[in-house]
Amino acid sequence: MIVNVGIFGATGYTGVELVKLLGRHSHARIAFAHSESHAGARLSEVLACPFDIPLVSADDAPLHKADVVFSCLPHGASAALCKRALDAGRRVIDLSADFRLRDAATYAHWYGHPHPYPDLLPLAVYGLPEVHRREIAQAQLVANPGCYPTSIILGLLPLIEAGALADPLVIADSKSGVSGAGRKPSLTTHFVEVNESLAPYSIGRAHRHLPEIEQMLNALRPGVPPEPIRLIFSPHLLPISRGILSMIYLRINALREDVLTLFNRRYADEPFVRILPAGQIATIAHAAHTNYAVISVHPVAELPDRVQIVCCIDNLVKGASGQAIQNMNVMFGLDETEGLR
Amino acid sequence: MIVNVGIFGATGYTGVELVKLLGRHSHARIAFAHSESHAGARLSEVLACPFDIPLVSADDAPLHKADVVFSCLPHGASAALCKRALDAGRRVIDLSADFRLRDAATYAHWYGHPHPYPDLLPLAVYGLPEVHRREIAQAQLVANPGCYPTSIILGLLPLIEAGALADPLVIADSKSGVSGAGRKPSLTTHFVEVNESLAPYSIGRAHRHLPEIEQMLNALRPGVPPEPIRLIFSPHLLPISRGILSMIYLRINALREDVLTLFNRRYADEPFVRILPAGQIATIAHAAHTNYAVISVHPVAELPDRVQIVCCIDNLVKGASGQAIQNMNVMFGLDETEGLR
Amino acid sequence: MIVNVGIFGATGYTGVELVKLLGRHSHARIAFAHSESHAGARLSEVLACPFDIPLVSADDAPLHKADVVFSCLPHGASAALCKRALDAGRRVIDLSADFRLRDAATYAHWYGHPHPYPDLLPLAVYGLPEVHRREIAQAQLVANPGCYPTSIILGLLPLIEAGALADPLVIADSKSGVSGAGRKPSLTTHFVEVNESLAPYSIGRAHRHLPEIEQMLNALRPGVPPEPIRLIFSPHLLPISRGILSMIYLRINALREDVLTLFNRRYADEPFVRILPAGQIATIAHAAHTNYAVISVHPVAELPDRVQIVCCIDNLVKGASGQAIQNMNVMFGLDETEGLR
Amino acid sequence: MIVNVGIFGATGYTGVELVKLLGRHSHARIAFAHSESHAGARLSEVLACPFDIPLVSADDAPLHKADVVFSCLPHGASAALCKRALDAGRRVIDLSADFRLRDAATYAHWYGHPHPYPDLLPLAVYGLPEVHRREIAQAQLVANPGCYPTSIILGLLPLIEAGALADPLVIADSKSGVSGAGRKPSLTTHFVEVNESLAPYSIGRAHRHLPEIEQMLNALRPGVPPEPIRLIFSPHLLPISRGILSMIYLRINALREDVLTLFNRRYADEPFVRILPAGQIATIAHAAHTNYAVISVHPVAELPDRVQIVCCIDNLVKGASGQAIQNMNVMFGLDETEGLR
Repeated sequence: MIVNVGIFGATGYTGVELVKLLGRHSHARIAFAHSESHAGARLSEVLACPFDIPLVSADDAPLHKADVVFSCLPHGASAALCKRALDAGRRVIDLSADFRLRDAATYAHWYGHPHPYPDLLPLAVYGLPEVHRREIAQAQLVANPGCYPTSIILGLLPLIEAGALADPLVIADSKSGVSGAGRKPSLTTHFVEVNESLAPYSIGRAHRHLPEIEQMLNALRPGVPPEPIRLIFSPHLLPISRGILSMIYLRINALREDVLTLFNRRYADEPFVRILPAGQIATIAHAAHTNYAVISVHPVAELPDRVQIVCCIDNLVKGASGQAIQNMNVMFGLDETEGLR
Repeated sequence: MIVNVGIFGATGYTGVELVKLLGRHSHARIAFAHSESHAGARLSEVLACPFDIPLVSADDAPLHKADVVFSCLPHGASAALCKRALDAGRRVIDLSADFRLRDAATYAHWYGHPHPYPDLLPLAVYGLPEVHRREIAQAQLVANPGCYPTSIILGLLPLIEAGALADPLVIADSKSGVSGAGRKPSLTTHFVEVNESLAPYSIGRAHRHLPEIEQMLNALRPGVPPEPIRLIFSPHLLPISRGILSMIYLRINALREDVLTLFNRRYADEPFVRILPAGQIATIAHAAHTNYAVISVHPVAELPDRVQIVCCIDNLVKGASGQAIQNMNVMFGLDETEGLR
Repeated sequence: MIVNVGIFGATGYTGVELVKLLGRHSHARIAFAHSESHAGARLSEVLACPFDIPLVSADDAPLHKADVVFSCLPHGASAALCKRALDAGRRVIDLSADFRLRDAATYAHWYGHPHPYPDLLPLAVYGLPEVHRREIAQAQLVANPGCYPTSIILGLLPLIEAGALADPLVIADSKSGVSGAGRKPSLTTHFVEVNESLAPYSIGRAHRHLPEIEQMLNALRPGVPPEPIRLIFSPHLLPISRGILSMIYLRINALREDVLTLFNRRYADEPFVRILPAGQIATIAHAAHTNYAVISVHPVAELPDRVQIVCCIDNLVKGASGQAIQNMNVMFGLDETEGLR
Repeated sequence: MIVNVGIFGATGYTGVELVKLLGRHSHARIAFAHSESHAGARLSEVLACPFDIPLVSADDAPLHKADVVFSCLPHGASAALCKRALDAGRRVIDLSADFRLRDAATYAHWYGHPHPYPDLLPLAVYGLPEVHRREIAQAQLVANPGCYPTSIILGLLPLIEAGALADPLVIADSKSGVSGAGRKPSLTTHFVEVNESLAPYSIGRAHRHLPEIEQMLNALRPGVPPEPIRLIFSPHLLPISRGILSMIYLRINALREDVLTLFNRRYADEPFVRILPAGQIATIAHAAHTNYAVISVHPVAELPDRVQIVCCIDNLVKGASGQAIQNMNVMFGLDETEGLR
């Protein structure tokens, strides 16, 4: 079986990562790769990569040849082309934020403009296979999770599902490589500004991934809790190209099993979640260039109700293109790990 | 006026930084520079630096020529040579951890061996000029603060002195450049292991700087509070050479003034604490290669009792050798900023 | 068809890269992975990687289960285990320098000790598929080329074969990432010493790869030239983890075709040599994490007899483990690109 | 004595470095700092630095208060403001390329537009103190050398003055940190594009610093040689913030003294040239954050007529702002090392 794949926005970092990963996939073939600004050129002429794939404009993209279309376009621009692909009867995996929030008003608040297709929102499945595998398999439109949200939700999932939160306030101190900010030049991504520094940004609950994370965390919570989960989320720009580490602080209730056992049990059958043994600490090196979320769990000396979770991913793989392919594998009934080991 | 300076352990990163900074100081002269393993060589032959200073063994160090002796030796090794300098009537600034903890039993617990000179501990002044300027001026023995402690204590000081902590539990998520780990080769400081990664270590309240920080925070607290301040302190190794960023999370009481005003007022006369205006966020680039602690203060949207403080320093300057010179300036009645602007 | 693979020295950077690449290979299975110092542990416990492979000592390595044995041990240590595998009738791909030089006396001169098995030297084929594909297919013992040699030989090959050198003196200014220096901690690979610097080493014709490169360049030369090719070879340590760029300067005779055409023609059928179009310059980013040698060719304004060649590889892939797998594919009649695209 | 200093273009990397270095200068005071795009703001608001200096537009710059004006503007823009300062009777140190080439036609060829003030060219002194100290002392207009030229000219000077070149063709393989490319965002300076790579650019004698270097090398040559010196100059972009290393290859005549002795003798009285002892190799770490050019000299085994010179500088200090201050010190009769040790 061959899945024919179309890609909107192939010349960004997630687009090229997708092309690279698809090249290792035994059951996928690229039907087209799109770039509006580089239409007519080949991918290898635009970036330092070996992929001699021709780039087409949106109007020339042969949608009918694709079984699934990935959109690697920025939010705002992405929704329109996803709509076009859906209208053409294609299944769609959108790597942008355009279909992640269920509520159009929340989208408008955080992204600064009304949602262009609010009627499509109910159609979208949030593409975290560890939570929505069954829905993804059936979905016409998958909203691929954000990179920070993937690292934070996977780090909290077992505790939240188990009702273990003693305090609805959770802190996530997250650090990301620069590819997460995209390929468009700006002073904040200038080498000299980033190098040999570390820069927090959008702290104090100001980052756009906040509502996405809180939406999922609260949806995962069993029963009707008195207070919603609130997240203090602090993103930092790290002087590295790729990788995210989220250090998560929370207060928990006494559990029947220890936290590590809970994590091991919850993720026992998950092909892309790796729980480190007691005593080891997850680092970005554990996850870089892989589709794994690597998690370590840490009690806090003298403070038995406290726990720290470290969750590391590669923002371009499990945080974007790898997870998108994992979703595609689920959607088309393929081995979920195909192309990703 | 000229202060004659001796240096024990001149060939580590803090030793060389000290030599570099002293070279810009108009009232200091190096009387001797010590290295046991490189005695007989010149500093410029041991490291990539332009300082043609001869290195002497401890037994050959002309203590009588020094008005003050800095020790840049590792803890354990440092105490013995500090003792020797004190016995020779010299004033001493110890950059190691050997005289920072007031309690010998705490030292033994965290450093794994009994304190060699517990009777010297009452003599030692904790060398944070923003707190102990008067005591430092008179001190015979100054325990120069650790790098992480400097960044965390300065980030909390105004709130703790003001009695503003609503919760005695404080979280500090700290990230440090690799020079803080010293110059001895090890797998954890191997370029390939550090580069393109981020590695938490000694988390869960396991780092040796924890008791040092808690000792100071609790000493600063006014009145007799019901519960001691406890710190969840998470150090991370950053792939940069120098700099520390501490992101501090805490819960505060309602204050008569806003937090930024409090910080500005508390540090108004401090030459080496810089408070950023509202809206700016401190980064390591703000502090690197300077003796400043650069602090920014952040309210948290929808959570009025929460505040985030970012405090950045250069671990080799304000976190070690620069602060040591600041202490020397105070001890000898010099302009506190001499050699450090 | 399945090739069963044994690995000596699996816990270094080339060993782990080999394991990673073999994981993507459809026709290879790891029969054993060896580490003397970590025997009994699993690879994932030794390094930040997801490979749960048990490590065995040399004495416990089931040689009879392997069709081919890779040795990733350092030179000196490698020869003895390669001998053991050969004696057991296994085919061997040695990634160390032990079987690269044809002359035992040259080996002794550059490596400081007599060659332990000089009688095996005539057996060894230098494993550069672009030159020795046919011999590799039949070989019992393949000496996998060094990383610098691969980048320099591939950058010169078409011109030397064409007899185009006007001057037997060639200059190669090469720069390598730190993984090329291995995983053993040392001051030269300490993060702070490498970071934000660039360090030439073994310049003035003092590096061990010099005789390896000169041996090949002179063997490739057609006819009996009056003077041997001599190389001025300047390696530099770059503050990056992986990748080599060699900038090669030479003087050439007038040719019937332009240099770019020559390169394109010579490498037209080579799956892992990529010649950039005129005007583009090869960078390390072109080659990193791939098995390609990426080459660009540059005339020099106003100096028609001069040419500059840039050749980039990933030192761990085309410069070590990727090329080793390419050799294995050739040896076992598999698609040469299997596991490497 | 106080020298009052004006700065045009204070918000680029060389501008800020100048402000930083002037802050350590005992005899300099900043009269004004200019930025057209940030006029009205303070320097500390524009960059992560502690300098609370107000920025003025060119029209508001109080030229009459300055004894000397530094221009850190880009070429093209710089000439006009230098002219304005000269017309106002001020002495000028121009860090741009606008007054470095003596020939207006050469300028037009390399910079793509006619020189705006060709009549000022004869006035300009090329500000390399090691060559033109006497002329700089008297100069009204100093053209501060480019960063690459400083590293290459100082690395060749003793041999050229001694008439030792056996071949007029010289190769310089130069590698620079990213701050040399300025602070304007672009894809070539985007963190992810630079990081973990090495990128040659403008090779094949295409870089604008080529005519500047060749002009100086030929001017330094004694007698009337048959052929001009030609340089093959290969700049590379290094993934570091600051520093240049030039590896220079040349062929020399037999000399009465060895090359190291020649270098030591030629630079014996130079405060900012440091020649390493035999056996040591200069690295960027030797020169970073200092005003030194650090040079090492290397014979080539078996090739007695060949020599390699390594010359390292900090591109922002000796390659720009430090050298500019050195020139100012010479112009105003101050200790040449003031503010720079």
